[in-house]
Amino acid sequence: MKQKLVVIGGVASGTKTAAKAIRENPDLDVTVLTEEDYISYAGCGLPYYIGNVIKEKKHLTIMNPEKFKDKDITVLLRTRAEKIIPGQKKVIAKDLVTGEEKEFPYDKLVLATGAKPIVPPIPGIELKNVYTLRSVTDAFKIRDAVEKEGIKKAVVVGGGFIGLEVAENLSLQGVKVTLVELLDQILPNFDKEIALLAEKHLKEKGIDIFTCEKAVSIEGEDGRVKALLTDKRKIDADIVLLSIGVKPNTQLAADAGIELGFKGAIKVNENMETNIHDIYAVGDCAENINLVTGKPAWFPMGSTANKMGRVAALNLYPKGEKESLKGVLGTTVVKLFDINVAKTGLSERDAKNAGYNIITVIVPAHDRAHYYPGAKNIITKLIVDKATHRLLGAQIIGEGVVDKPIDIAATVITLGGTVEDMAKLDLAYAPPFSSAMSSTIVAANVARNKLLGKLEGISPLELKDKLSDPGLQIIDVREEAEYQVGAIPGSLNIPLKEIKKRVGEIDKQRETVVVCKLGLRAYLAYITLKHLGVKNLRILDGGVTAWPFELE
Amino acid sequence: MKQKLVVIGGVASGTKTAAKAIRENPDLDVTVLTEEDYISYAGCGLPYYIGNVIKEKKHLTIMNPEKFKDKDITVLLRTRAEKIIPGQKKVIAKDLVTGEEKEFPYDKLVLATGAKPIVPPIPGIELKNVYTLRSVTDAFKIRDAVEKEGIKKAVVVGGGFIGLEVAENLSLQGVKVTLVELLDQILPNFDKEIALLAEKHLKEKGIDIFTCEKAVSIEGEDGRVKALLTDKRKIDADIVLLSIGVKPNTQLAADAGIELGFKGAIKVNENMETNIHDIYAVGDCAENINLVTGKPAWFPMGSTANKMGRVAALNLYPKGEKESLKGVLGTTVVKLFDINVAKTGLSERDAKNAGYNIITVIVPAHDRAHYYPGAKNIITKLIVDKATHRLLGAQIIGEGVVDKPIDIAATVITLGGTVEDMAKLDLAYAPPFSSAMSSTIVAANVARNKLLGKLEGISPLELKDKLSDPGLQIIDVREEAEYQVGAIPGSLNIPLKEIKKRVGEIDKQRETVVVCKLGLRAYLAYITLKHLGVKNLRILDGGVTAWPFELE
Repeated sequence: MKQKLVVIGGVASGTKTAAKAIRENPDLDVTVLTEEDYISYAGCGLPYYIGNVIKEKKHLTIMNPEKFKDKDITVLLRTRAEKIIPGQKKVIAKDLVTGEEKEFPYDKLVLATGAKPIVPPIPGIELKNVYTLRSVTDAFKIRDAVEKEGIKKAVVVGGGFIGLEVAENLSLQGVKVTLVELLDQILPNFDKEIALLAEKHLKEKGIDIFTCEKAVSIEGEDGRVKALLTDKRKIDADIVLLSIGVKPNTQLAADAGIELGFKGAIKVNENMETNIHDIYAVGDCAENINLVTGKPAWFPMGSTANKMGRVAALNLYPKGEKESLKGVLGTTVVKLFDINVAKTGLSERDAKNAGYNIITVIVPAHDRAHYYPGAKNIITKLIVDKATHRLLGAQIIGEGVVDKPIDIAATVITLGGTVEDMAKLDLAYAPPFSSAMSSTIVAANVARNKLLGKLEGISPLELKDKLSDPGLQIIDVREEAEYQVGAIPGSLNIPLKEIKKRVGEIDKQRETVVVCKLGLRAYLAYITLKHLGVKNLRILDGGVTAWPFELE
Repeated sequence: MKQKLVVIGGVASGTKTAAKAIRENPDLDVTVLTEEDYISYAGCGLPYYIGNVIKEKKHLTIMNPEKFKDKDITVLLRTRAEKIIPGQKKVIAKDLVTGEEKEFPYDKLVLATGAKPIVPPIPGIELKNVYTLRSVTDAFKIRDAVEKEGIKKAVVVGGGFIGLEVAENLSLQGVKVTLVELLDQILPNFDKEIALLAEKHLKEKGIDIFTCEKAVSIEGEDGRVKALLTDKRKIDADIVLLSIGVKPNTQLAADAGIELGFKGAIKVNENMETNIHDIYAVGDCAENINLVTGKPAWFPMGSTANKMGRVAALNLYPKGEKESLKGVLGTTVVKLFDINVAKTGLSERDAKNAGYNIITVIVPAHDRAHYYPGAKNIITKLIVDKATHRLLGAQIIGEGVVDKPIDIAATVITLGGTVEDMAKLDLAYAPPFSSAMSSTIVAANVARNKLLGKLEGISPLELKDKLSDPGLQIIDVREEAEYQVGAIPGSLNIPLKEIKKRVGEIDKQRETVVVCKLGLRAYLAYITLKHLGVKNLRILDGGVTAWPFELE
């Protein structure tokens, strides 16, 4: 008799596991159970469907049970797994159309139950046009509402990726969007100065953003949403998207005695095995390992889900060594109107919390040859371990290409590379694609200079806190014309060229910060001023370009 | 007295060395000698100036001696170094304007004399509008000729990067371009099937290309070029660009007793030191080490030149451990009309010549989520060491983004990564930037499958050679509609769905190749056919998408 594989869940990792499993074991009897109406849909594309960037439903839902049948995989839609009985190796499921209960015996069981949105327990969430966005059905409803009900105003609660992507896409549909975030920054996984730069851009694009603000209730009229109330104000809304986060969907597993781990995700080893023999877990319902710290983590992402599915599929009936996934970095990227924002590995905050002694750099650069049409700026932040010089994390933001350098950084981190390794990478150069010294290499070299003590930096956040300190002097070494356009409050303009002859204007005993546009001129001024006896001297990391606060 | 640094050469590596040297040693007396009219110009941008993609001269020549003076660097234009006397630590140079001879004593000397075009010894090269392209002055002359002399027809001799970039840019200016290449392929550093795909695209864009053809002479009229004669034909031309290659410019060094190495480039160690104490060499005039093989190499590229300049500058007066560059990969990228082509590490040919036992894969994939607007195809070739599973090289071609995955591959190679490492990279995923399983990861997984013996492939070149073999059967498993559009000559169409019931049409004893569009359906068919007893079975690497020959 054929061996039976049952997979619970049919979006990314579930279908990946099923497809790979039957390629590896053509005689396998594979059944995928999903309570949803669609299978293997493009979960990460949903915000773009709302914005009509992706025009048609069919682009999100190209797969269907018939196509899986061609691969010898049975897919049962609208079939909810309700109980796992490991002792009898069977799953009890309910047909959501007929109400009928069915038993699915298995030899191997893979849980791919995903994650579900956290819904805040506030009054009014039952009103019409209050949504979360997780399934393709949610996306269909939201776009229908926007296009057919004359929606003018939206409130998005939560400033994570999904919230921001939906904010952008609603805005592209002509809807006025207000975003409310409980924390003091959007993009909660990013360091604050990067998040502030993103926030600045979103505001320029017409999104109102209120951080440190709590959604308290939703007001309605005739059963439809009319406004969102926060602890500070009332915001009119024809539609509200609740996007405060997701949690692993693991009740079914927990009820069956399957051990849960970090943030309630199913505990798995690097082979995707749970604590119960012949039961595996993959995708957003399962735990990860942070590849940098080696500690448990939870990164519910499509890219990771696919890898986990492959690992589980190869380990059902392993032909040699078991397949493993040692860990992931939580690499992410998001497009927000005209800018791109990406991250890999540890943030500065993560690294400090994990006990690392670090240096950080913030380095603006062009994404390709500055003289080639279309060249744009990006700002690279690196987090580097002082002891080993290993790269621990990177964050990149700007109008230019950020996914390339973040992937290079992810590769360096994965393979244990140092900033010395990074600075010497032989990256592809031609004017349409890169600078001769790419942003990656420039940033790595700045980090090396810092590690060697050739310069000391001050972060924008620290300088902002010190602006009112009368003991501090800020010297802006840009040209006067640049300075006039906008400068750090309280800074004194001494262009680099004049720095030697005007050194008398600088109090050599006071704490001093030098500032330029990108960092290089400040570094040259730093060398000169050090040489001339200025002691307590630092450079503003990232210059005026990466300054996320007001200029004057 | 101040220590004196003299740098000979003022394009990329020379000025990089000078600028970095004075940052490291503010008291240094730095002089840069160049025989050219411009300093630190954008050498790699020159083809794009010819095409008016880069509009203005000033974008190529933003630096000048005055700006270097601000950095305390003396730049002498039109000053040709004529002799180095190491025993007296001085350089004799000639002012090309006044004819005056000058002496430049040095404590440290850096040679950055670059490379120069190889000019074939054929009759007619002295005619007007016969050019090479190396200096910014060459670019100015060529664009002037194109825009002011009513140039209609051009012949480019040589199918390397510069030749192809100029061919594209002349074509963008409305000039009919014919390209003549002595070898049997353009892009000589690439494997032939990739070069053939590029050739196909260039031909579609209206460039006539003749490979295996030798330029024999240039015919003129009234001193102006009229035609290029090859060993096979006469090609009318108003302009001829000779771009058969470059060689290191090292006569000056050789005359001074400085040792030359690979391809006549100046021999340097990983600290950029020559055999003569206090003399360094950097950039295109100097040798490299191939990071994969550890053997001498010569990669005259701006990205490498900048790194070499930094290394030399740090080693003039080292403050601790010497700075080094262990080697480079020869990573390159080129835009050719609507496609991009990139390479890093060893080609299949290089790897075989170096004695590696390898597998290769050719894997087409989208550059981002297939459903996201603007998604384009790319084709990835990987070259992998069978013994260690280490990535040795990669080549990527297509309309989509190739510079990102080639840089990831370069990083993997540099850090000694295997295809297992590559397959598990946590790369940034969101629909506008990548697929959930990125092209890099898919290609690495195909390589892993090949290394594990899960499939055997046949390259397009090998299959092409076997097309006339009556013992061979080719099974195309695409849908009939796809097959009708174009198929490998002599192939039999059995769509994947029908493969089980139509297996009787396949002779199980004959050599069999399965083909699909991208590779996945062929792999599924391969598994089924193996299972059904077809023995001598292979998959066409890269499917119909990567087939560089005619379809019928």
